[in-house]
Parts: sequence; structure tokens; C-alpha cells
Amino acid sequence: MGSTVITGIGSLVTNDPSIGDGPLGLLSDAAVVVADGRIAWVGPAASAPAADEGFDAGGRAVIPGFVDSHSHLVFAGDRTAEFNARMSGAAYTAGGIRTTVAATRAASDAALDANVARYFAEALRQGTTVLECKSGYGLTVEDEARALRIAGRHTDETTYLGAHVVSPDYADDPAAYVDLVTGPMLDACAPYARWVDVFCERGAFDGDQARAVLTAGAKRGLVPRIHANQLTEGPGVQLAVELGAASADHCTHLSDADVAALAAASGTTVATLLPGAEFSTRAAYPDARRLLDAGATVALSTDCNPGSSFTSSVPFCIAVAVREMGMTPDEALWSATAGGAAALRRTDVGRVAVGARADLALLDAPSHVHLAYRPGVPLVAAVWRGGERAA
Amino acid sequence: MGSTVITGIGSLVTNDPSIGDGPLGLLSDAAVVVADGRIAWVGPAASAPAADEGFDAGGRAVIPGFVDSHSHLVFAGDRTAEFNARMSGAAYTAGGIRTTVAATRAASDAALDANVARYFAEALRQGTTVLECKSGYGLTVEDEARALRIAGRHTDETTYLGAHVVSPDYADDPAAYVDLVTGPMLDACAPYARWVDVFCERGAFDGDQARAVLTAGAKRGLVPRIHANQLTEGPGVQLAVELGAASADHCTHLSDADVAALAAASGTTVATLLPGAEFSTRAAYPDARRLLDAGATVALSTDCNPGSSFTSSVPFCIAVAVREMGMTPDEALWSATAGGAAALRRTDVGRVAVGARADLALLDAPSHVHLAYRPGVPLVAAVWRGGERAA
Ligand SMILES: [Zn+2]
Ligand SMILES: [Zn+2]
Repeated sequence: MGSTVITGIGSLVTNDPSIGDGPLGLLSDAAVVVADGRIAWVGPAASAPAADEGFDAGGRAVIPGFVDSHSHLVFAGDRTAEFNARMSGAAYTAGGIRTTVAATRAASDAALDANVARYFAEALRQGTTVLECKSGYGLTVEDEARALRIAGRHTDETTYLGAHVVSPDYADDPAAYVDLVTGPMLDACAPYARWVDVFCERGAFDGDQARAVLTAGAKRGLVPRIHANQLTEGPGVQLAVELGAASADHCTHLSDADVAALAAASGTTVATLLPGAEFSTRAAYPDARRLLDAGATVALSTDCNPGSSFTSSVPFCIAVAVREMGMTPDEALWSATAGGAAALRRTDVGRVAVGARADLALLDAPSHVHLAYRPGVPLVAAVWRGGERAA
Repeated sequence: MGSTVITGIGSLVTNDPSIGDGPLGLLSDAAVVVADGRIAWVGPAASAPAADEGFDAGGRAVIPGFVDSHSHLVFAGDRTAEFNARMSGAAYTAGGIRTTVAATRAASDAALDANVARYFAEALRQGTTVLECKSGYGLTVEDEARALRIAGRHTDETTYLGAHVVSPDYADDPAAYVDLVTGPMLDACAPYARWVDVFCERGAFDGDQARAVLTAGAKRGLVPRIHANQLTEGPGVQLAVELGAASADHCTHLSDADVAALAAASGTTVATLLPGAEFSTRAAYPDARRLLDAGATVALSTDCNPGSSFTSSVPFCIAVAVREMGMTPDEALWSATAGGAAALRRTDVGRVAVGARADLALLDAPSHVHLAYRPGVPLVAAVWRGGERAA
């Protein structure tokens, strides 16, 4: 593959303050050269070197591909009726997550793989070039390992979430389920996962159980991340910081001590906010402003899953974060790119700098601000991943 | 052009209760035959007649094309900096609408036409097959007539909105501006417009001025519609009902008497809700539930404009209406199709029934509920307008 020079970039977000203005490292009238899947050169269009091929951005904006660090895409079925009932105020005996677990267990490998491929492609068309994917709808040794094997065909960012909920098969003995998750299930899943995660919440796993799950995973080389403080204040955030987790996800209900802990751990533990979940469950949004003002590192992701947040659209999450969570358009863009990369401890993505992976999204707009200014409009006009045109 | 049969429609919204279930007239496993730009047949897939060509919807949902009855698309420039400042809490001496008026006046016909074409195409890709378009950024006789001439190249639903704001040129003499709007400007614009509109609001035009504008327009054969009760309770809604306007748009701040008046006038005057404006200005949303429960006819539209609601996405407005305004997914879909048609007094669009214009959107989803369930995701997979594949 030869080199490509992208010229005519009206506004380029690099996320590298040494290259351009402000935290986004903004450059106007810029060019980027891509070679061997990497960024080979970034700078003013006027001094761009020659390359084998050219692409004219026509004055439009280019941003780093989105890094969506939180999704649950190995599932079958959907929960349209449950969503419809919730939003219509109608009575509905929701099977909830059990509905998805049953459908997922019953699905063939090929059906699950096709579903994952479909949602990854959908996300890619919307500018997402790195997408984390969790297990968690299998809840047996075989089904969790299968989920991670399938996820691993589509992303390196695979997360073992056997501790999504207590399996219905262990409803009477949650402790035995934790033993399974930290024992045979972990043995089966560890080879296929980079991360270990747990849903630490009333009704799911308490602080001690969550610590056991993450500690066991860490002993097998999986790096902890955690669903923390989504529905209530709880021990999740403090546990994330204590264990040096890469990310505490949701962070909707935080004490002052939680905010302080996340701020102090800003180089280690990212606060990942998932406004799609609050949007789709009519819940109160997390306060991004409070976290940012305290000095925490904030990521913005979709939580794409069929129960509580069935959006794969990072642009939508950006628009909602600006409307509802006190983020500026610049902060939201940073959090959805560099913030997501930090939450996945990646330095090769989430920025446009020499040596980084050539993951880029061209917007049909003169500025990244349009992602919030033009909510719902599909603005992603082209996507490159690893230097190749992907959408 | 020959006939086409669309088969394999998993779920079809007809908006015709005599054809299918409930107010949406839902059919499952349906087919539609299109001929000569019209719907020629609707019914169960198993009994679909033959046609010259076939299209397999593959089990996905088909809905009527969206009827977006409120937009302001004849403009030049954008207001990114103003939006960014508003959402960032930064000081900004906003030129506001004057910025857009100056840019629009300065633009060539060709530039304005290209802009309108661009946003109409963008809306069409998102399923909008009828799109109303207002003047209102010219505010001189020549510039308003030009705006309507250009709009008329793209839609039959053109609206004369010389009374958008008092022209800066008449800041010291608003009465003289009303005389212009109801006199020479109306003379110049009436040949190019179907509708007359006025922004009835504190800071724009009061009830008496609005009555003068709408009455003058009606005498020239233009049918009234009105920007009413967006920022404050005011006389707009009552005036709409008094004059038999086709629509009262915004309806964000309503007294009980306003709601009762809209309910009593439900066969004449539609309440058109525009949540994009509240989303993008962080304002409180209109209460659709209150209007629906009272018996008003409700439409849902984008208000697409560069100042307060720069979205062309009806699916986005549906998702927000369900999240924020108490609409069910079914009600929101109806309001964005049949409701919009009612607001434009059209019976040929907004439904899928024999004789209607063949305006259809295929969703990459099994149900129209996914428009709310999957917010921000571009779900419109194909569009037919007047029987022709348009996107
Ligand atoms: Zn999650
Ligand atoms: Zn308007």
C-alpha cells in the first residue's frame, strides 16, 4: 500500500497540543500523510510532502476516529417490546437481561458473529475505529468463552464480563456464581480477553464480590475495569481507584470523595460516561462538569447494548453530553477520542500525530463542533482505519 | 416507469387504521405495490400481486416518508461560534439572526440554491420526503422574494416569513416594517408562497402585528401558520385558532386555555412541536403528553435552521420526543408523518394507502420503534419519493 496525502482539511483535531491550538491541538488548513497504516506527517497544507495518492477534504473537518471503550455487542434478539413499554408507561413484565441471556445462549456461533459484525460495521460508518466489546450475556463457562472468542474476531479490546449479573442458574447461591466467575469461567475466558469487568451495583455484585472478580482477573493478566456507581452511590469507584483499574464506567452517582479519588487517579483510572444509558432509561445524567473541574480524565462512550442503551452512535453521545452533562463541544470530542484511548490505555489511537495509527474520520462539516451543533445528522462522510478507507 | 412490489416488509406503518392495527395501521409481513408514483396496493405479502420489478425488504420495517413541516433552509453562513459559546458558557456578543441575515443577503442565488439543495438532500437521506421551507433571512422585498423563488425549486411547501424578526433596517420603526411585510413585500412574495407565517413572540411581533401579517397574507390566498408560544406564553396559539391557521408551531409555553383551544381546533389547527430547538438552546421541552391527552393533533418537525436547531434529522426529533416530551414511540412516529401532513393540510402524503404518493422509508430495523430505541443511529436504509428510489 502506498502513501496518501489528505489535503484541504479545513479544521484538523490532532489531540496533540504540541502540534496545534488548545487541548485539541487544532490546526486549520492542514494536511495529513498516511503511510503503512500510520500517520507519517501532519502539518500545514501548504507544506505537505508529496504522496502516491491524494484525497481532497474540501475544507471539511477531520478528527481522530472515535475510540468507544464500552459496548456489549455479543448478543442475540432485541428488547423492542421492553423499551416500548418503558417509554409508553405501559405495564410490562420485563425479562430484562434474562431475555437477552436466553436468546444469546440459544443462538449459533454464526448468528452471534454476524450480529457483532453488523454492529461493528454500523459503528465504523459513524466514525468509530476502535470499539471495545464485553461478554456477559452467556453466564456459563462455555457461553462466556464463546462470546469472547467471537468478539476477538472483531476487536483486540475484549472484556471478560462473566460478572454482568448473577446467572439465573445461580439465583439461590450468588457466592457459588462468584466462585465460577473467578475459577473455571475465568480459566476458559482469560485466553480470549484483555480486560476483566464487573457490574458493581445493588442487585448485581457488591464491593467484596467485585474485588474478588477483578483481583482474580488481574492475577491472570487481565486489566480491571468496572461498571461503577450507575444507579446508586456505591463502592465501585473507590474500588476502581484502589485496584488501579483502567476505567470506572458510568459514574452517574458520585460522592465528593468519589470525585476526589477519580481526580487524584486521573493518570491511571478514567471516568467513562455513558449518556446513552441515561437517555434510554430516562435517568438523570452524570455530571461531567464536576469531574472535569476536579481534574478527572473523562471518556465518553456508547454502552451499546440491547437493554439500556441501544445506540452505536458516538456523535449522538457527544451531542447529549454537551446538552445535558456540562461538557463543551471540545471536551466532548476529546473524551470520545483521546479519552476513550486513555480508558483503553492506548497511545496509538485517539490522536493524529506522527506514528499513531491512521484512524481518521472526515466530517461533512467545517468543524468538529458540528457534531453537537447538528445533533442526529449523520455527519461522518469518510473513515480511514489503519490507513485504509473503511467507510 | 413500471410497477414495483416491495415484499418482505416485517412491519409496515400505514397510518391507516382501516388497513392495520391501531392508529398506525400496522401490518406485519406486508407488501406494497407502487405504480405511477402512487401506492397501488397494500396488504399481506402472501397475496401481493405481481409487478414489473421487485424489492425485498428482508423483514425490515417500512414507514411513510417523514413530513417535516417546519424548516428555515434558505440561508448562508453558519453560527458555529455562537453555538460553541452558548454551550461552553463563554461570553459571546452574538449577532444572532442578524449574522445569518447579513450572510444571506450577501450570498449569490447560486450559493443559496446549492445550500438549500444540500440540506434537502441531507434530509431526504434521513427519510424526509416532504419538507416545508420558509423565507425569513432576507427581510427586504427583493431578498424575501428571492428566498421563496429558490425554496420553490425544491419544495411546493414554501412559506413567506418576512415577519421573522423586525428587519434591522427598521429597528426604530417596527410599524413601518409591518406595513412593508403586509404591503410591497407580500406583493412580491405571494406568487412564490403557499403559506404565510409570523414569529409571534416578545421581541418579535405582538398579537396585533401578527394578526395583521396573517390576515394580509390570507387575503392574498396564503394560508396562515404561526410561530407561537416558544419562549413565553403569549397570544400566538389563540390567534392561530381564531384565524384557522394550519399550525401553531413550538407550543412550548401553553396555558390551560391554549391547550383547550388546540384540542377544540384539532381538525383545523395542528400543534407542531420542534424539540430540536429546545435541545440546542438548553430550554425546557414542550409537553406533548398534555396536548395529546387533551385531544390536540400533534406534529413533530425539525425547525432546521442555523441558529436554534441545526438538525435535519426527524429520527433524532422522534427519539428526543420520546425521551423528553412524554410521547410514545408510536405517537412520535405518527406525528412525524401523518401529523406533519395534517400540519400541511396534505392527504396525499404521510400514509401508505392506495392512491397516496409513494413516499416510503425502509429502516434497517425490524420496527419503527427502533427510531427511538436506537437514538442517533442512521437507520434509514432506503427512501422512495413519488415511487422513485431517492436514497
Ligand atoms: Zn455496560
Ligand atoms: Zn421556526
